[in-house]
Amino acid sequence: MVRYKALIAYDGTLFNGFQRQSEGRTVQEELERTLSKMASQPIMVHGSGRTDAKVHALGQVIHFDYPQARPLEKMRFALDTQTPEDIAVIKIEEVTEAFHARYLVKEKVYEFHVQIGKPRSPFRRHYASYYPYPLDLTKIERALPDLLGTHDFSAFCASGSSVEDKTRTIYEATMTYDESLSELVFTFRGDGFLYKMIRILVGTLLKIGNGRLDETSIPSIIASKNRQLAGPTAHPEGLYLKEVRY
Amino acid sequence: MVRYKALIAYDGTLFNGFQRQSEGRTVQEELERTLSKMASQPIMVHGSGRTDAKVHALGQVIHFDYPQARPLEKMRFALDTQTPEDIAVIKIEEVTEAFHARYLVKEKVYEFHVQIGKPRSPFRRHYASYYPYPLDLTKIERALPDLLGTHDFSAFCASGSSVEDKTRTIYEATMTYDESLSELVFTFRGDGFLYKMIRILVGTLLKIGNGRLDETSIPSIIASKNRQLAGPTAHPEGLYLKEVRY
Repeated sequence: MVRYKALIAYDGTLFNGFQRQSEGRTVQEELERTLSKMASQPIMVHGSGRTDAKVHALGQVIHFDYPQARPLEKMRFALDTQTPEDIAVIKIEEVTEAFHARYLVKEKVYEFHVQIGKPRSPFRRHYASYYPYPLDLTKIERALPDLLGTHDFSAFCASGSSVEDKTRTIYEATMTYDESLSELVFTFRGDGFLYKMIRILVGTLLKIGNGRLDETSIPSIIASKNRQLAGPTAHPEGLYLKEVRY
Repeated sequence: MVRYKALIAYDGTLFNGFQRQSEGRTVQEELERTLSKMASQPIMVHGSGRTDAKVHALGQVIHFDYPQARPLEKMRFALDTQTPEDIAVIKIEEVTEAFHARYLVKEKVYEFHVQIGKPRSPFRRHYASYYPYPLDLTKIERALPDLLGTHDFSAFCASGSSVEDKTRTIYEATMTYDESLSELVFTFRGDGFLYKMIRILVGTLLKIGNGRLDETSIPSIIASKNRQLAGPTAHPEGLYLKEVRY
């Protein structure tokens, strides 16, 4: 058995998320089907974590154990071309059995795209959420630093999560404007994120930018641990898992 | 009756082209359905010309006659939001009855995107054609100016066209490289283009870049008027109708 680590990208539009489900097409299932065919035996794929339905990945990391060593570029090409077109295999490397795609994650980086131009671009309808209402970007910029640091983020966690410890550390929370796409691009880097946390963070920041929530309210929302005080959950199509660091 | 001119964009992926067909979903049909509902009477839409299945538009122009005058932004907003998400209505203006979206076209501008990076991006599979083979871009750059001017472009016209006069004038034929997307972007501006002409031009230019056709061969291919001597027809997903000038 040889353990491989692979860097993959996928367009989440037509997937019911990364993780194998009883219903719906998933990224894990497609990767496992292709690898199992290549190896002529069942291969299990381990991802760095789940992504929800319609959420994209620019740099998801997986590992799997394969019955024999194969030339890396041959392996990458076979897996890339034999999986469906909405999955790309960017890089494959051999790792020791000590490596684990999920347990050893140090940091994750997510990006969230919000189109704010009018009309909504038909080309971005699956790749950015859309916010057609007025936004004061300086308010969002003032609120962003309040997210940094180690906090109990219960207020930004969707119900249905079974995780007990909701303390996470956010190292980076920024917003830039992509003029060619008329899109706000939020970047969040942290040691881990709760269920739908990024989407709730973005929904809250947009509510602040729209003036329906005060720009100084983040600390009190965090302290409340009350999901009801944060903003709505932004749509999944704007979210990208950008990088996983070990 | 008031005549309106509208600037529209569409993602061609899920359309069987612009023009109403007996089979398949078309842009014209969606626009006509929405306008007819808005006006409570049948409204006919005239486009600047057809686009094929899967071909996109950034700036298609249409006109239609509407029973009464309406505030322009209200009209634009209604048509934009009531048509499906893969159609956007960018601008509407009132024009005289002398205006006709098809008959008065002076120039059209098309863009063609070719992804050349590895692996193929899952996010661009519907928005750029893919060329994974070696390319000498200087050869393409040397060939491009040979397309300029007034020629009989029969060699670059797909069979099945009923147009008799195949003389067209190309004013602009350029190629740039979009580094962030790893895509070649071809731009063609001319007084009109034949059936599948841009896609055959791109297929021929890529064959030249790949060294399987000489970089000086464009003039002799044009002179031959023989479709067999030009390159293959590039895939429709890379093609964008960018602008129509009157």
